[in-house]
Amino acid sequence: MNPNKRSLGAKTLLYPLPALLVGSYDDQGRPNLMLAAWGGICNSEPPCLSVSIRPGRHTHAAIMARQAFTVGIPSRKIIAEADYTGIASGKKNDKFKVTGLTPVRAEKVEAPYAAECPVVAECRLHRTLELGSHTLIVGEILDVKADEDILAPGGNYPDLAKFEPVGFDAGSRAYYLIGPQAGLAFKDGRKFL
Amino acid sequence: MNPNKRSLGAKTLLYPLPALLVGSYDDQGRPNLMLAAWGGICNSEPPCLSVSIRPGRHTHAAIMARQAFTVGIPSRKIIAEADYTGIASGKKNDKFKVTGLTPVRAEKVEAPYAAECPVVAECRLHRTLELGSHTLIVGEILDVKADEDILAPGGNYPDLAKFEPVGFDAGSRAYYLIGPQAGLAFKDGRKFL
Repeated sequence: MNPNKRSLGAKTLLYPLPALLVGSYDDQGRPNLMLAAWGGICNSEPPCLSVSIRPGRHTHAAIMARQAFTVGIPSRKIIAEADYTGIASGKKNDKFKVTGLTPVRAEKVEAPYAAECPVVAECRLHRTLELGSHTLIVGEILDVKADEDILAPGGNYPDLAKFEPVGFDAGSRAYYLIGPQAGLAFKDGRKFL
Repeated sequence: MNPNKRSLGAKTLLYPLPALLVGSYDDQGRPNLMLAAWGGICNSEPPCLSVSIRPGRHTHAAIMARQAFTVGIPSRKIIAEADYTGIASGKKNDKFKVTGLTPVRAEKVEAPYAAECPVVAECRLHRTLELGSHTLIVGEILDVKADEDILAPGGNYPDLAKFEPVGFDAGSRAYYLIGPQAGLAFKDGRKFL
């Protein structure tokens, strides 16, 4: 064991973590949003992402019923709105109305997203896995949509500097921005080949 | 549909994505490292994380054999080393020797990590889920260890500014740093309550 490392215990610390705005329609057709930090990409072919959600959450029942959800990535402009969706429940609150976020029906699946999220993934429910406190929900990504004005020049992907996506720090319980580029993947390591 | 959003197709884009250094011992007991961007926290009780790995990878067989792995978070200081571990295979290369990274045996599980990663999670294999190209591998986090000198003052968690963890951008295929704090979780949204 490295003598310089301190044991912090069995904790949900990992870096970076996302702040995912999960969109769904409930059984009455009301659009809902819920912030989730437990999630990420989990498969390449077919492209899939996962979000883990407690079974008691309103969003959990909604995803199971419609077999669909969206995942929006908030920018710094809507941090307070996104944070609220993780605190309040869609059972009692119309989170779109309260925050002023604009519900848009996804194109490929029966789920809404917030127009104010610069990037959104439209997902069809693919698999679930019960893990204890949370259900790991795997969605097949049928489409990713992004605002025109945040795309990289000539690129088919977002420019992080224009996008300003937000991440979550489980340690300090804070949101943070993505910083400057620090290296090139599949390239910087080639010096060791 | 929002007229300002452009469809980018069915892609593995999500923000932020991590750059996870997965550590394992192979069947000959050789320590190995592999960079993985498909992963995240996936359960709270018990604390679990997931990494998705292609079945053909050397790390995949090693994790299945020992039922254990570590996940180290690289800092900006070892970006090239981390990148190399995602390019080369442990079948033919001793990645610790090639990069100069220092293998340390985990305390709780039979798996190694790189001492140079400021934060490391020690995981016992918990569940697997075949998703197509990748196996989603869920590990129960038995301990998180961190370098003393990156901990928050008086805190039991890392200070991001001292830690300087690296993330991955699947769009530009680049690594980036974590930027400044931009908001407080479970607090900024309370103005809507």
